Amino acid sequence: MNVLNVKPRLLLGPGPSPVPFTVRRAMSEPVIGHMDPQFFAIVDEVQSMLRTVFGTANRLTLPVSGTGSAGMETAIVNFVEPGDTVIVVVAGVFGGRIAEAVDKIGAHAVRLEVPWGQSASLEQLKSLLREHPETRLVAVVMAETSTGVLQPLTGWAHEVHRMGALLLVDTVTSLGGMPVDVDTQEFDIVFSGTQKCLSAPPGLSPFTVSERALERLDQRATPVPSWYFDIAAFRHYWGQNRVYHHTAPISMIYGLHEALRLALEEGLNERYARHRIVAGALWAGLQAMGFELLVDPAIRLPSVTTVRIPLEVDERRVRAELLDYDGIEIAGGLGNLSGKIWRIGVMGHGARLPNMIQLLVALRQRLVNQGRDVPSGVAAAEAAYRANNRQGAK
Amino acid sequence: MNVLNVKPRLLLGPGPSPVPFTVRRAMSEPVIGHMDPQFFAIVDEVQSMLRTVFGTANRLTLPVSGTGSAGMETAIVNFVEPGDTVIVVVAGVFGGRIAEAVDKIGAHAVRLEVPWGQSASLEQLKSLLREHPETRLVAVVMAETSTGVLQPLTGWAHEVHRMGALLLVDTVTSLGGMPVDVDTQEFDIVFSGTQKCLSAPPGLSPFTVSERALERLDQRATPVPSWYFDIAAFRHYWGQNRVYHHTAPISMIYGLHEALRLALEEGLNERYARHRIVAGALWAGLQAMGFELLVDPAIRLPSVTTVRIPLEVDERRVRAELLDYDGIEIAGGLGNLSGKIWRIGVMGHGARLPNMIQLLVALRQRLVNQGRDVPSGVAAAEAAYRANNRQGAK
Repeated sequence: MNVLNVKPRLLLGPGPSPVPFTVRRAMSEPVIGHMDPQFFAIVDEVQSMLRTVFGTANRLTLPVSGTGSAGMETAIVNFVEPGDTVIVVVAGVFGGRIAEAVDKIGAHAVRLEVPWGQSASLEQLKSLLREHPETRLVAVVMAETSTGVLQPLTGWAHEVHRMGALLLVDTVTSLGGMPVDVDTQEFDIVFSGTQKCLSAPPGLSPFTVSERALERLDQRATPVPSWYFDIAAFRHYWGQNRVYHHTAPISMIYGLHEALRLALEEGLNERYARHRIVAGALWAGLQAMGFELLVDPAIRLPSVTTVRIPLEVDERRVRAELLDYDGIEIAGGLGNLSGKIWRIGVMGHGARLPNMIQLLVALRQRLVNQGRDVPSGVAAAEAAYRANNRQGAK
Repeated sequence: MNVLNVKPRLLLGPGPSPVPFTVRRAMSEPVIGHMDPQFFAIVDEVQSMLRTVFGTANRLTLPVSGTGSAGMETAIVNFVEPGDTVIVVVAGVFGGRIAEAVDKIGAHAVRLEVPWGQSASLEQLKSLLREHPETRLVAVVMAETSTGVLQPLTGWAHEVHRMGALLLVDTVTSLGGMPVDVDTQEFDIVFSGTQKCLSAPPGLSPFTVSERALERLDQRATPVPSWYFDIAAFRHYWGQNRVYHHTAPISMIYGLHEALRLALEEGLNERYARHRIVAGALWAGLQAMGFELLVDPAIRLPSVTTVRIPLEVDERRVRAELLDYDGIEIAGGLGNLSGKIWRIGVMGHGARLPNMIQLLVALRQRLVNQGRDVPSGVAAAEAAYRANNRQGAK
């Protein structure tokens, strides 16, 4: 067996995003013990930086020891009990996944189905809450990675709390790339991933829980049907007592530490602006090339752009050539949208104009290879960047 | 916030064990996508090397995306259903943990309780199986990290299979440090960790499942109460189809790749001999210093040595000084054995004579600091190493 020798890629898919060198270097720091005071000092800093990025003072703020879906599972197994009614907004793959997880533990997922590429309205939520006053939890994806839609959530917490329910929000593809504002928006349970706008490797799920939700946890009638994800058991490791539950993924936490440090060093507002402006440049470039974007600008995510694939384009061949010849990764559609869209990430460290220009040029070449000439998108992308850049980014 | 600057430790606790430089360097390789053919080639190699280390041809052999306890949870949620009877050998913390996980999902754990520091007998198993012919699964820890006991398992699979049950084995603290021989021993479901005798960082759980167990999985009457750990859902990512389930922890898999490569490069038998011989040297040294070992030599683990703490020793101070002044980590006891024993790891990359000598010398000094002079253990450790080394290790 040979030593690993990984050929680098420009990661412009919907995650993982490009991981900066210093984050990867942090992962190669010496491994120390999970009960070492030196490690607890690092954990303290990670928890504190996570609170800043989430926009929360929640005591229970930590990285769950698994990928983003592990955060989802932690939310479901702790805050949903068998027989509970849970309203789940299903506007793409990741909303559907939450509904599946709810059903799997014997609760009842009421699906608020939304056509893929659109968002749910506050009115739809209100109406469903009236229909199901027994609802214990409302689950919604803030940034739907499969469609590129940003779900507006203004007023949601108020309606949910008025009915005595909790609000669970998936921020996997938003955290670090746009304001999440957990406390201002009164979200109760929030999970995320590290490999999107935070630009750390995949393997941890940033997670935060409001005091309101912790009270609900104390009142559970049934045991949490999981040992690994049982908050009541593992929270003491992440609290003042530092009681051993499972061995923390040390090196992953080093990487997250550096990724959070870089985000705060840049400044969160500057980082959010960078994501918006670079995404705007990508959109302008793609549209100048004649592509149609799936999502209406009012609810379009900066972090994932979804592009309709023109008929007669062999989309798999385009992606394979981009990867093999240009070293650029983008993704195809999932589920309903498979074969119909490409998904382009504008995430974290990768959200930079030169990366987008590189993609636009390479993508044009791939289409030429299939006998389809399209205009260049470069000038339009640069122009859009310059126009928006006056508003503040570097 | 400052950039991480981790002070190295000599990790001689029961995990994490010292992680070689090349494993840490592998973790800093460029992150690529979880659907990249280049990554699948790496995954193939990891799966193939895991099969070799496990001693199995099982198709379903993979690293679960979480720490060792995540492997335990994967085993329980997939192969146990509510109402099932499960015999669990409880001879320490980690057996107890399996029993808890069984109870948490609504099954019935029949505990085969063994005094800590001892092992269960085949007769005890037989008698309990006769008492509970409805048993669906028997779960046992091969290497109990909390006591330092190696549980003999000869003949167990035969008895378990005769009753139509499956055999689940926790190999967290054995895999890579001694033969596990999954196929020869006819284990059905086996999980492990990466941060023990494999000397990779914590964060993955090597896992393997027999065809017999997969048949059982197909016959489940109830859904698996977990989204993240549902084998039927995630196995296709680790199989020929490579269907997306959750984002694999890319960098952790790089680290595991290198750790497995190093183990196979050394040679598994050579590696096992090294663990035995170095552990023997440690035992001789500790005994020469007047320490009493908790476990009878016949069932003593090479990978974790448990030492009785003499009365009047301030054991927390000893450990704190070892860590602060000597940079050496060892661990105290868990549960019943808290304050009564130290646990010393002879694991993976750390299982080397000079490391043990360093510990013996430092430990003696820490006792002197508490006014307790003890003889040196160095000569005895070296002599034992030389005597056993004639049998084959480097």
